[in-house]
Amino acid sequence: MRFISVALTCILLIGCGGETTSSTPTAGAVPEQTYQWKLVTTWPKNFPGLGLAPENFAKNVERMSNGRLKIKVYGAGQMVPALEVFDAVSQGTAEIGHGAAYYWKGKIPASVFFTSVPFGLNAQEMNAWLHYGGGLELWREVYEPFNLIPFAAGNTGVQMAGWFNREIKSMEDIRGLRMRIPGLGGEVISRAGGLAVNIPGGELYTSMQTGVIDATEWVGPYNDLAFGFHQVAKYYYYPGWHEPGPTLELIINKQAYEGLPEDLQSIVEVAARAANQDMLDEYTARNNSALVELVETHGVQVKKLPDDVITGLQKLSVEVIEELADRDPQTRRIADSIKAFAAQSKAYHAISEEAYYNAREK
Amino acid sequence: MRFISVALTCILLIGCGGETTSSTPTAGAVPEQTYQWKLVTTWPKNFPGLGLAPENFAKNVERMSNGRLKIKVYGAGQMVPALEVFDAVSQGTAEIGHGAAYYWKGKIPASVFFTSVPFGLNAQEMNAWLHYGGGLELWREVYEPFNLIPFAAGNTGVQMAGWFNREIKSMEDIRGLRMRIPGLGGEVISRAGGLAVNIPGGELYTSMQTGVIDATEWVGPYNDLAFGFHQVAKYYYYPGWHEPGPTLELIINKQAYEGLPEDLQSIVEVAARAANQDMLDEYTARNNSALVELVETHGVQVKKLPDDVITGLQKLSVEVIEELADRDPQTRRIADSIKAFAAQSKAYHAISEEAYYNAREK
Repeated sequence: MRFISVALTCILLIGCGGETTSSTPTAGAVPEQTYQWKLVTTWPKNFPGLGLAPENFAKNVERMSNGRLKIKVYGAGQMVPALEVFDAVSQGTAEIGHGAAYYWKGKIPASVFFTSVPFGLNAQEMNAWLHYGGGLELWREVYEPFNLIPFAAGNTGVQMAGWFNREIKSMEDIRGLRMRIPGLGGEVISRAGGLAVNIPGGELYTSMQTGVIDATEWVGPYNDLAFGFHQVAKYYYYPGWHEPGPTLELIINKQAYEGLPEDLQSIVEVAARAANQDMLDEYTARNNSALVELVETHGVQVKKLPDDVITGLQKLSVEVIEELADRDPQTRRIADSIKAFAAQSKAYHAISEEAYYNAREK
Repeated sequence: MRFISVALTCILLIGCGGETTSSTPTAGAVPEQTYQWKLVTTWPKNFPGLGLAPENFAKNVERMSNGRLKIKVYGAGQMVPALEVFDAVSQGTAEIGHGAAYYWKGKIPASVFFTSVPFGLNAQEMNAWLHYGGGLELWREVYEPFNLIPFAAGNTGVQMAGWFNREIKSMEDIRGLRMRIPGLGGEVISRAGGLAVNIPGGELYTSMQTGVIDATEWVGPYNDLAFGFHQVAKYYYYPGWHEPGPTLELIINKQAYEGLPEDLQSIVEVAARAANQDMLDEYTARNNSALVELVETHGVQVKKLPDDVITGLQKLSVEVIEELADRDPQTRRIADSIKAFAAQSKAYHAISEEAYYNAREK
């Protein structure tokens, strides 16, 4: 602020205004401070979809700010390991991070509600809850003690149920199933008698190939095709149930954000919103064509989970979520907010988006 | 450009740099030109949802540009009538406009594909086609001769089939039905033996009340509740079929856009993208609660169109779209692009979003 007033004086003293007949000098009309931010992510550098969102966000911010806010993007492990992104931004080692809220559930049990919960909101509904249903305010309240401001910044759309080397005909077939499935979905599988394990993405192909695991979820056709799971798994199951609308996040160190002038704060906020939609657009388009390739070129068998497996998993999901909500009053408040919103959006979407999808199948 | 170099020289000459130890002067560091744009819309000023999008867009652009680009929003008729928005922006009377591409189908038959066509893409799919399926490039090609650059800037989600005072049990019940339904949907109703009419929104309530029409489509619960259609209609029909993913547009005069410096161009582009998502978020949240009010407070009878009516309308829709596509090679190219995308997205969404909606109903 001090700098701006000094510079303004300089300009006024020498009367550059003689050249400004068609222009009006504004508060932006001074040599302004530039900012260099480090953006740490939970994804490998340039990972398709997930990893491109922070890159596109950074480019947009730089273009919109005319270089006044430059953001350098680091892949997982380049500056801090994936699972240290939250702490690094909280402490100010990096100003901004991109990842998913449910990675921090060890620290904040309620964080899972800001990514996706089994049988919860899909992408369209998550965005509506966050931006017009009070969700973002709750998210900010939860991250506030950690010195972080969260923004929704990407969504993959509903994820596939996963790749299986065992046919699932009933809930009995989940007993003893060794499946890579993290988060609440994993708790549901464990409760159904399966063995839920968490294995890093890079080891999944080999784990499936060698039989260390019988099944794995990942994302959807676009990312799954790139990993080559069709070479080591028999069946590709749908519908996804464990992560119906996975929301990615940008988290910003509070002091770093508040240290920006208001125009740059707005640029960051609006760029996050655009990134949020852009990722869903990309996944929606690329999942389409990847599915065609998986089925037509690689002969993948796409199979539907039986209805009684769906109802079985749904029943266990409600139990898992209710137990989580009971852990503390704040988590209960968030769970109740999303539950109330879900009840209405389920009723409305039953006669709108869902009914339309079904109608065009006729 | 000339002004910037002169101003830069001024600054360099007087050596303001002495105060800039923590800062770097940039190209933005000069008294910059401000721009005042007029934004004309096809909506009444501040119309819920549709009319708020251009207001929010203008606010975001002003905040992000620190007031360098100020956009004043005019409702329909305040500067030009709703249906003259396209010409006004094309000719430069206003720099920018907000409306829907299919309003210009008299001038550009292909424009309907950039809003919504019967049994076409829903909101998520339209955004994917536009931004990752070549749709936006085609849209720009079509508007280029009119001196306009289009951007997607809003989506209502699938619209309801509408309000009816006649029960629809079979295609026979559409014979003689006097329905307000514009665009290709109207052509389908006419082909089914109905009488499709176009009546401005403001006259619909009275037209339904006095029996001038038997049915009308509008948008969905959020907008329909405000219009009070539940007071003058017996049935509220779903699923919507005529406008499954209505995309709104921002159109910008080419010279006005090219006259902006690159940072302001980026600000306009990213703000449009954010507005595009924001409207869908708002409709998704508010349609939910409005539906609850319609059903629980006003006792509205929500009814489903019978399957054979859906298949009948779908068959006629294909005819109408194919005849439109045959009008000229460019329209055919656009129709084929969207058809190819739709085939894939239908197949993918059948096992993802659609399958998920159905699964959680179990």
